[in-house]
Amino acid sequence: MHLLGLLPRRAWASLLSQLLRPPWASCTGAVRCQSQVAEAVLTSQLKAHQEKPNFIIKTPKGTRDLSPQHMVVREKILDLVISCFKRHGAKGMDTPAFELKETLTEKYGEDSGLMYDLKDQGGELLSLRYDLTVPFARYLAMNKVKKMKRYHVGKVWRRESPTIVQGRYREFCQCDFDIAGQFDPMIPDAECLKIMCEILSGLQLGDFLIKVNDRRIVDGMFAVCGVPESKFRAICSSIDKLDKMAWKDVRHEMVVKKGLAPEVADRIGDYVQCHGGVSLVEQMFQDPRLSQNKQALEGLGDLKLLFEYLTLFGIADKISFDLSLARGLDYYTGVIYEAVLLQTPTQAGEEPLNVGSVAAGVERIFYIVEQRMKTKGEKVRTTETQVFVATPQKNFLERLKLIAELWNSGIKAEMLYKNNPKLLTQLHYCESTGIPLVVIIGEQELKEGVIKIRSVASREEVAIKRENLVAEIQKRLSES
Amino acid sequence: MHLLGLLPRRAWASLLSQLLRPPWASCTGAVRCQSQVAEAVLTSQLKAHQEKPNFIIKTPKGTRDLSPQHMVVREKILDLVISCFKRHGAKGMDTPAFELKETLTEKYGEDSGLMYDLKDQGGELLSLRYDLTVPFARYLAMNKVKKMKRYHVGKVWRRESPTIVQGRYREFCQCDFDIAGQFDPMIPDAECLKIMCEILSGLQLGDFLIKVNDRRIVDGMFAVCGVPESKFRAICSSIDKLDKMAWKDVRHEMVVKKGLAPEVADRIGDYVQCHGGVSLVEQMFQDPRLSQNKQALEGLGDLKLLFEYLTLFGIADKISFDLSLARGLDYYTGVIYEAVLLQTPTQAGEEPLNVGSVAAGVERIFYIVEQRMKTKGEKVRTTETQVFVATPQKNFLERLKLIAELWNSGIKAEMLYKNNPKLLTQLHYCESTGIPLVVIIGEQELKEGVIKIRSVASREEVAIKRENLVAEIQKRLSES
Repeated sequence: MHLLGLLPRRAWASLLSQLLRPPWASCTGAVRCQSQVAEAVLTSQLKAHQEKPNFIIKTPKGTRDLSPQHMVVREKILDLVISCFKRHGAKGMDTPAFELKETLTEKYGEDSGLMYDLKDQGGELLSLRYDLTVPFARYLAMNKVKKMKRYHVGKVWRRESPTIVQGRYREFCQCDFDIAGQFDPMIPDAECLKIMCEILSGLQLGDFLIKVNDRRIVDGMFAVCGVPESKFRAICSSIDKLDKMAWKDVRHEMVVKKGLAPEVADRIGDYVQCHGGVSLVEQMFQDPRLSQNKQALEGLGDLKLLFEYLTLFGIADKISFDLSLARGLDYYTGVIYEAVLLQTPTQAGEEPLNVGSVAAGVERIFYIVEQRMKTKGEKVRTTETQVFVATPQKNFLERLKLIAELWNSGIKAEMLYKNNPKLLTQLHYCESTGIPLVVIIGEQELKEGVIKIRSVASREEVAIKRENLVAEIQKRLSES
Repeated sequence: MHLLGLLPRRAWASLLSQLLRPPWASCTGAVRCQSQVAEAVLTSQLKAHQEKPNFIIKTPKGTRDLSPQHMVVREKILDLVISCFKRHGAKGMDTPAFELKETLTEKYGEDSGLMYDLKDQGGELLSLRYDLTVPFARYLAMNKVKKMKRYHVGKVWRRESPTIVQGRYREFCQCDFDIAGQFDPMIPDAECLKIMCEILSGLQLGDFLIKVNDRRIVDGMFAVCGVPESKFRAICSSIDKLDKMAWKDVRHEMVVKKGLAPEVADRIGDYVQCHGGVSLVEQMFQDPRLSQNKQALEGLGDLKLLFEYLTLFGIADKISFDLSLARGLDYYTGVIYEAVLLQTPTQAGEEPLNVGSVAAGVERIFYIVEQRMKTKGEKVRTTETQVFVATPQKNFLERLKLIAELWNSGIKAEMLYKNNPKLLTQLHYCESTGIPLVVIIGEQELKEGVIKIRSVASREEVAIKRENLVAEIQKRLSES
């Protein structure tokens, strides 16, 4: 027996005890009937079920699990988005899922009621974060950071009535990119628009446009049209509905519900139906009413500069100056923008895309990509396994030796956790999971020192010398 | 004016309006003093500060922000961990941050009090997840999945008294890998151990060992030593302290605090000081007392098989059968294991690593790697920018054209958001942020159709034809 005391006096740092816990559910062998976690959950909930007939095993209202299928789509999209952010020199960061309630309150206006509060369990009052913007602002203030280009990908939570069919949930992912600091005008804005174009092109979602406007132009327009200042916010939110409502309905809302004079509404109507490129900016400079408003002129001046930069970036044709873009939120003060996908209704077979959704953001993209894949019947592989190691006879131990060699060479490999499975079962597994290559360790081949490589798609098999196997697999994988 | 109604009747899907919000803080120009979010947060909190003198801008107790420096380390480690999981054919998945309180209660025994409950805001009673195991079990039960190899990386929350110095927080990350299903014995366990070895080797944290034992051997050992069954759990938790307490102190605790007969404690003492390889397994098969216990024999039989597989995987030398490994939790029923770093005390300069930490897991690895980098004075680059675009004179517009070309070629590029910054400022920026290459668009060079490439490290400059610039940069980047 080795005594612990006799070992060289080393410091032992316990590590990883939780990282890889025993594959608890892998021991639920019929022989040994141990209480396993999954069973325990199931059992205790079935018990609960008997006591409370309405109890079911579920995720909380408005939330869902992300299955391996979802995760594959997300990972692909987020990789593209994050690599774009990195290409533009952004740093990553993260903040806690919850903040002091005080940090969040009064930041979201009437939406504050949608925050998830944590129970008072003694100590601080906390709420789950509602977006990534206020935590970033808190981070900047707390660390006295004046300048920072950062991206932040993370979950946020809102207690909204979930309309799950349209892909809106109470827990969802946001991808934020912000350039904080004081800089020469329109340069960071131009870069943000460039980033949006790169991401939308990269995702290959189809043709798109980015609408831009400026809050000062919106406010100036309201002023010169004769909207009383007290109605700015209310009218703003009506205007914002123009992407999903016809002008006459929006006009009706402004006049009847919000008490705007009809002639004022009509004046607004002339403006908000305008959209175009830099020539529209020039045209608005000449507009007899708008050109009288100092704020509007400032906004127009910035937009003109912005278009100059966008032209140099080669994306001016993707940008549309759109006077109907209003964005009611308080913290939009200068240039505002919004991307829209251009989609002909004839692009059929697809579920009609919820026009003008407010719940925009990266979840919307996940949803669109998932819908398209569903429509096209595209099958998603949920693993990346490249090679399956199979044995037709009882060469199980050879399988272990060989698969370890593949793993050690960085090859993604799987086998069945059975001592002696049927070859057909193994080949079926490859076909159903999309594994492209199988190596087969046969009795005869073992004697001759060769291994068979089988292409699952073509069903072709070739024998390769055992010592050349890894190199041959790597060659085939690099070619495919 | 283009009228919206005159456009081809397309369906417009609003998209991304939140993905890339205007770089709000980029407009805080001194000229335009708009209320920005960061300022708003700051202002409202300073106001609060005046009213409540104790209020400070902070993260909730036991939590912290992850700075760009932290994120770089995490990303590197998680990439390695996840790519190992994928190499072994695991699928990714995610579950909501919170679960129905009913799903979580009674799963963690006395730890249930450490759960973060959400406030009852009408509707379901919810709690933040405490680990990733119970949500996985709920997922399996809910979807009636019998078999699944999955990994899950995500945050979990526990209201423990935070001892932040040692890298323990109330919000932390877990990386779980589980093989759920019924399989032939010890094959999935062997693969889990292989994965642990691959990850620990890959991270280059230094020499390590993985201790293994089996709950049935632990229970059998207690039985043959004469521990009353009612004391199994309590004695188990004493034994678990052997990695940070000497045997005589553990013995004292068992005898004095837990009322174990001294001769029983001594019998346990003989066993728990044993550790070794497969030969120790054989030795225990011959042990006069242990060989009388059916449970222990089953455990020993499995360990023997496990060692056979580990030998084929080429990792048997990393595994130590250790009778002091006890792991008190209910859901460990078969093989149990735990990784330890072997570290000589002379590996100085490093903070002594918290021996036998219970808060193991991937956060422990983040902490160790961060400590090592700090000790070595390694500087972390928080961006991946490869090229900086500079202009010594007012060739700002050329800068925009050129940087767009780099971005479009997939090159990670930055510039300053100034029309006319000093060249020295630009070069300093590169040095301080570790950008390796600068392209300089000079007046003279513009006329000659060339651009200068400067290596920041060597300060060497060469002129390259404008049209060859991208190719030259890509060549240099691929070589470095």
